[in-house]
Amino acid sequence: MEVFAVPDIPEIEPGDDLATLIDERVDLREGDVLTVASTVVSKAEGRGADLSDFEAGEHARDIADQIGEIAGERKDPRFAQAVIEESEELVMAAPFILAVTRFGHITVNAGIDRSNVPGADLLLLPEDPSASARRLSDALGVPVVVTDTSGRPFRQGQRGVAIGWAGLPAMRDWRGEHDREGRELTATVEAVVDELAAATNLVTGEGDDGRPVAVVRDWEFGDHDGHDHLFRDRDGDLVRQALADFEYHSE
Amino acid sequence: MEVFAVPDIPEIEPGDDLATLIDERVDLREGDVLTVASTVVSKAEGRGADLSDFEAGEHARDIADQIGEIAGERKDPRFAQAVIEESEELVMAAPFILAVTRFGHITVNAGIDRSNVPGADLLLLPEDPSASARRLSDALGVPVVVTDTSGRPFRQGQRGVAIGWAGLPAMRDWRGEHDREGRELTATVEAVVDELAAATNLVTGEGDDGRPVAVVRDWEFGDHDGHDHLFRDRDGDLVRQALADFEYHSE
Ligand SMILES: Nc1nc2c(ncn2[C@@H]2O[C@H](COP(=O)(O)OP(=O)(O)O)[C@@H](O)[C@H]2O)c(=O)[nH]1
Ligand SMILES: Nc1nc2c(ncn2[C@@H]2O[C@H](COP(=O)(O)OP(=O)(O)O)[C@@H](O)[C@H]2O)c(=O)[nH]1
Ligand SMILES: [Mn+2]
Ligand SMILES: [Mn+2]
Ligand SMILES: [Mn+2]
Ligand SMILES: [Mn+2]
Repeated sequence: MEVFAVPDIPEIEPGDDLATLIDERVDLREGDVLTVASTVVSKAEGRGADLSDFEAGEHARDIADQIGEIAGERKDPRFAQAVIEESEELVMAAPFILAVTRFGHITVNAGIDRSNVPGADLLLLPEDPSASARRLSDALGVPVVVTDTSGRPFRQGQRGVAIGWAGLPAMRDWRGEHDREGRELTATVEAVVDELAAATNLVTGEGDDGRPVAVVRDWEFGDHDGHDHLFRDRDGDLVRQALADFEYHSE
Repeated sequence: MEVFAVPDIPEIEPGDDLATLIDERVDLREGDVLTVASTVVSKAEGRGADLSDFEAGEHARDIADQIGEIAGERKDPRFAQAVIEESEELVMAAPFILAVTRFGHITVNAGIDRSNVPGADLLLLPEDPSASARRLSDALGVPVVVTDTSGRPFRQGQRGVAIGWAGLPAMRDWRGEHDREGRELTATVEAVVDELAAATNLVTGEGDDGRPVAVVRDWEFGDHDGHDHLFRDRDGDLVRQALADFEYHSE
């Protein structure tokens, strides 16, 4: 399997035709999977926003106060308002906002970025990253994974994850298959779209490298079942339930 | 960057010299990173175990009862005992055991496997996977990541993660570097060992493919700071704190 970044992608502007920009720069082959950083999908979709676009309601002011008190510096309640408007639900409000986006992804600040955002204060995630992936996949003829960089419990730091996909199943389902001893696998479901996002994040990086699009070549999903249930819902997520009950106390 | 499995690895037995078995099957080059599934590290290190090796104490019997009641079937308390003995702390006991291994990794059942385990009931994780990685790295002359397949909150299924590493930093630290707008990155720390583990998991798979060892070629860590703090400690992990307070109630 080969992983490489598509070269020479320009700075993406609202309204840009990302599919054409990509198509002009890489010869995609059958079997390729394309990953695209949500940053450039958002830029093309005009998801830049300014703090002045948001009018902080009471909930946002309350959250900004809570976070500000813990951090020891005033927080702009309009940012909390932006996160609320991008979210279906907040899992936690302080010391940082952990939110469920409208498409089911759980991440800090609903994935709103303040880096690699020209001419605006904020960059919101794509409204429906799987729909964005679908449009790119239809135009380019290969499966597409829209990625973001996201933190996680238990482990420090961040890694690339999938937030949308089209043209391949999110999950490679090994249940019902067998191990080397002939024992049936009963629980193994591999989140291949996350593994693809992690793999290409190694070459796209997080800074000013200018490599938002990457190709995974000569990887095969193989003859396995697949499904698309990547995001846990509340009933299937004890951590989400535990966090709903949790009250943060700083020392 | 290229990712490929090392071919023709035999069934690994206790006492096998894994480094030599790998060295005979692949021409490693400078710049390669090797990933090795913990399964074969454990097998080589004789970490197979039988349920009869464990004498269930009160805590284990209590946990097995709790889990068994929720599952509606009797659970073997000796398995809970094995998990306890492999753990520094249990984060949660029911409906499943979420444990902190002695080396800091948080996972279900302390990562004890019941698949791909010949001639024993259980396969324990390596005692100190970074020490195992260090021995392999010294013998083979390339960085080594010891991997496992592990689930996670918020997202369904599992993906490859690093549980030990040597010869490269766990984290690529982007803090202090700049984005395309010249804005300083203040929070971005990329868990590259996890991304490497995820990338190679795409080619090693989870079943009977017989591909426990993989090479990542022509990837560069690059000119970045690095550090090894992959596992969060309790103070830095609100999820772990929330789970400590959580009581599971089945409907
Ligand atoms: N060529 C190009 N690269 C960009 C643009 N925006 C971001 N990048 C690059 O895309 C990669 C991922 O950027 P990042 O901010 O981490 O995106 P995210 O992970 O989707 O939030 C980095 O290499 C950035 O330098 C753009 O408009 N054009
Ligand atoms: N050649 C060989 N492959 C093995 C052996 N044990 C496991 N595997 C393979 O290694 C890969 C990873 O196995 P898995 O059970 O998922 O390991 P884990 O992720 O470390 O728990 C699969 O392709 C297995 O078929 C072994 O002793 N020899
Ligand atoms: Mn982002
Ligand atoms: Mn990123
Ligand atoms: Mn395992
Ligand atoms: Mn595995």
